[in-house]
Amino acid sequence: MSAPAAALAPPLYRRLALIGIGLIGSSIARVARRDGLAGEIVCAAKSEASRDAALKLGLVGAAYADPAAAVAGADLVILCTPVGAYAEIAAAIAPHLAPGATLSDVGSVKQAVFRAVGPHVPPGVHFIPGHPVAGTEQSGPEAGFAELFLNRWCILTPPADADAAALERLAEFWRRCGSKVEIMEAGHHDLVLAITSHVPHLIAYNIVATAADLETVTQSEVIKYSAGGFRDFTRIAASDPTMWRDVFLHNREAVLEMLGRFVEDLTALQRAIRWGDGKTLFDLFTRTRAVRRAIIDAGQEVNQPDFGRTGAAAAPE
Amino acid sequence: MSAPAAALAPPLYRRLALIGIGLIGSSIARVARRDGLAGEIVCAAKSEASRDAALKLGLVGAAYADPAAAVAGADLVILCTPVGAYAEIAAAIAPHLAPGATLSDVGSVKQAVFRAVGPHVPPGVHFIPGHPVAGTEQSGPEAGFAELFLNRWCILTPPADADAAALERLAEFWRRCGSKVEIMEAGHHDLVLAITSHVPHLIAYNIVATAADLETVTQSEVIKYSAGGFRDFTRIAASDPTMWRDVFLHNREAVLEMLGRFVEDLTALQRAIRWGDGKTLFDLFTRTRAVRRAIIDAGQEVNQPDFGRTGAAAAPE
Repeated sequence: MSAPAAALAPPLYRRLALIGIGLIGSSIARVARRDGLAGEIVCAAKSEASRDAALKLGLVGAAYADPAAAVAGADLVILCTPVGAYAEIAAAIAPHLAPGATLSDVGSVKQAVFRAVGPHVPPGVHFIPGHPVAGTEQSGPEAGFAELFLNRWCILTPPADADAAALERLAEFWRRCGSKVEIMEAGHHDLVLAITSHVPHLIAYNIVATAADLETVTQSEVIKYSAGGFRDFTRIAASDPTMWRDVFLHNREAVLEMLGRFVEDLTALQRAIRWGDGKTLFDLFTRTRAVRRAIIDAGQEVNQPDFGRTGAAAAPE
Repeated sequence: MSAPAAALAPPLYRRLALIGIGLIGSSIARVARRDGLAGEIVCAAKSEASRDAALKLGLVGAAYADPAAAVAGADLVILCTPVGAYAEIAAAIAPHLAPGATLSDVGSVKQAVFRAVGPHVPPGVHFIPGHPVAGTEQSGPEAGFAELFLNRWCILTPPADADAAALERLAEFWRRCGSKVEIMEAGHHDLVLAITSHVPHLIAYNIVATAADLETVTQSEVIKYSAGGFRDFTRIAASDPTMWRDVFLHNREAVLEMLGRFVEDLTALQRAIRWGDGKTLFDLFTRTRAVRRAIIDAGQEVNQPDFGRTGAAAAPE
């Protein structure tokens, strides 16, 4: 007659400080609180509305305007703001980080995080960048939920000389958030995410902007007939603008490299269309179907035909 | 104490012949049977497996290998095969079409339908092409459902001299399938769909193929980390290869024009990334968010954050 393991496990950290309490930060707070992953959870947020929301939602015990105040006494500090704000925050909190504390983050780029934060990290603090590959198109403390990380991968990119115990403790934290943990070199992370996340976001933003700017087709027509495929792009293109600006500014080389490949391949498809080469089109369209099946088999997607959302959402009349 | 209107309305057509019984054809059969839109429903399908499935699922009263047999005595014939097969089918069925019958289709391109089918239409048959803007990433008679067209637009592109009564009857058929009906000129339809559907599909197919072909990132990494945005593209890129090959081959001019605009805009974004122009990125990412809100307000999308599917799909542990 044993109780669930999660209920018995002691907190992994005494005090968790989340710097930024948007979609990701508030989701960490929710799962950490629900499953007792930290003795105490506090946050820092620049906007008063976010601090008020975090307190009102019961996500944190205290919410500070000053990140230095939030990190005092914390043994785990996670940066959850857009990456562009990291350098300034790192400089501000560095003198207040407790010896032996772990400093991590959730940013979608990792080499830039080493550049921005690394120089500020005091001796005795374990700096282990991380990236939970999870998200939605919504933002803010209200948008988070405790299951966001469930069955998703969390990539940690520790420096070569990372403390093994600190790394394992952080990995365990993410596993108890529901994630599967992978250790990766920061540069490789940036390449992998450029193709699986950054370039997809860029082309989604781009097609939505292209459609909005046409003269031959009105914006109201684009909206009316969006169920033909377009609306799926608008979902991704509704992601947080500040976060994504910072991603592209801070993963420039990898994004430009992957984008170059994308455009090269697109040019070949364009040529196939122009010359009526049906075989090239058919072969490619068949090959891409197999990739989706692999993603469903890997548990990273559901097989429900969400593309035709009416069927899923509406009850038969 | 009145029964629902749908239950009282008499069938709009005596005999409905569906040529092709995949996702769209079988969805028409389902809603037409459920709501009594036709006295009799039959289909033609090239593959024996599809004919067997249609009969087994109770979608049709008879399933023919020969489209000419299916259209005999039908007062509504709807072509539901990939567009590339239309010309041959039209030639085969033309001598067997009943005088006064309406001949329509569900193809995603419309000028090419006039070119392929138009010359075969006998005098006295009403040729009114159509396009229900609805679909999912799945194919085949099993994939259909009666609610597919609910609250979606169906675009009819009648010739200038179309019979007004035949047009209204077909429009009423689609309204009783749940659709909102719009009348449009075929050339304009092809432009609108090029940007709202065809180019989005093309770039989704393309990014999936690009990702599958990289040497620096393995396919298993692409699959593992697909939740960062990529998997949404694989959904669209899992659509039927034959249908989509035919769309691109038969809407070449409009697709190439819209693709040209897309690439031009993408080049500007690429340049903004290369030169670190954060303002251009932020402004564009903000603008695209508004387009999504408009699509949700127009009832063409749900506001549920499906991008983070775990939260929607998985129960809290």
